[in-house]
Amino acid sequence: MPRYRLTIEYDGSSYAGWQRQDGVPSVQQALEEAAAAIDEAPVVVTGAGRTDAGVHALGQVAHLDLAKSLRADKVRDAMNAHLRPHPIAVLEASDAAPDFHARFDATSRSYLYRIVNRRADLALDRNRAWRVPVALDADAMHQAAQALVGRHDFSTFRDSQCQADTPVKTLTSIAVERHGETIDVRTTARSFLHRQVRSMVGSLVEVGRGRETPAWIAEILAAADRTRCGPVAPPDGLYLASVAYDPPGTGT
Amino acid sequence: MPRYRLTIEYDGSSYAGWQRQDGVPSVQQALEEAAAAIDEAPVVVTGAGRTDAGVHALGQVAHLDLAKSLRADKVRDAMNAHLRPHPIAVLEASDAAPDFHARFDATSRSYLYRIVNRRADLALDRNRAWRVPVALDADAMHQAAQALVGRHDFSTFRDSQCQADTPVKTLTSIAVERHGETIDVRTTARSFLHRQVRSMVGSLVEVGRGRETPAWIAEILAAADRTRCGPVAPPDGLYLASVAYDPPGTGT
Repeated sequence: MPRYRLTIEYDGSSYAGWQRQDGVPSVQQALEEAAAAIDEAPVVVTGAGRTDAGVHALGQVAHLDLAKSLRADKVRDAMNAHLRPHPIAVLEASDAAPDFHARFDATSRSYLYRIVNRRADLALDRNRAWRVPVALDADAMHQAAQALVGRHDFSTFRDSQCQADTPVKTLTSIAVERHGETIDVRTTARSFLHRQVRSMVGSLVEVGRGRETPAWIAEILAAADRTRCGPVAPPDGLYLASVAYDPPGTGT
Repeated sequence: MPRYRLTIEYDGSSYAGWQRQDGVPSVQQALEEAAAAIDEAPVVVTGAGRTDAGVHALGQVAHLDLAKSLRADKVRDAMNAHLRPHPIAVLEASDAAPDFHARFDATSRSYLYRIVNRRADLALDRNRAWRVPVALDADAMHQAAQALVGRHDFSTFRDSQCQADTPVKTLTSIAVERHGETIDVRTTARSFLHRQVRSMVGSLVEVGRGRETPAWIAEILAAADRTRCGPVAPPDGLYLASVAYDPPGTGT
């Protein structure tokens, strides 16, 4: 059975998350149903990242095996035709090696968190960003965030439901940048703990609004204590931006 | 009665347009109901531009008179509180002169038209952009568009339902710029004919996809003949970006 690699965009607002769950709509289920319609048989779609309810993707990566052998661009177009009217789109499909695994082969994941820093409610960005009505100092947030880069015990920024073997992760980069009323937080790591990005962003906002100093982020990180974390940022602003793989052996 | 000037953002997807009409939801009605809830009496909200069904605004301007005398920022916050759950937000409210008129005093209007030039369906930009699946040459579109600048008879780009007294308008500027897969068309004029922006953009896309040469735009403009217009672009990609006023006498 040929294996394909998909790059996927979705609006997570109306889904219980990436992962298939009984009785609630999921992105994985919508994709599996679209693939099943092509193959006229059940298909499993395996994603690189299991995004939470309400979290979006600009570039989720997944793999699937089809019984039918189709040109990759035909897979993309057929998936998109069957996905309508879901707010999920297959941006690219490519032939993958038979052993390519979207989740286990990923060498890094990049997330974008979008804050809209204004008093007025969101209209066009509703469900697509976190509105913070009090003035935020993005430079202070960026400075504070640099303490998170490197290999650390991220227990402070780890959800109690997290199933990872260890709280020790290596954060490759994190950058906070203001563009007008929008503040973008971009961060990359090989992998993240459950709700790590939203926990980091929520804590950085405490610094941005002046409730805590930039040095506080290093302090709560060093404490490795979940009770020290700031309020967790809502899912609305979070986007799985991209997933990276080593060029050889990925089949692309 | 104090007069206020509002700057308004909205997602037009679920409205029959700006203008109040019997039996269908409109942006004007939602705003008038929010204002009436503040004043406990009917209020008229007058907009600078009457956007069509499905057209959005980043910076519509409107005026209204309230019986209550409130600080302008309280008007903004109270309007937003009463507007929930509409995807309409009052970005700014300011005190206006008693004779300020959002529509008649406007000295120019700027529109943004967003095209997403890609094969895959839209997920995050659904209803917020026009997806054009064939490759577009944005430079050719920009070059062609320059023929539209200046004072012309725009009959070719005028909807048959247009109620303007004359088809002669002066286009101040139009620019077509590609940013990755997005192509933004930005245009400014004192005023536009009904569906003029969508008619111009639809025709420019004929040039971008190579069906027509850039010189064709000047040709169909000179013909002043509605039947020569390209297919009218859908409302999804259109945003009323901003409205300008002369500084003195506008009350701000």
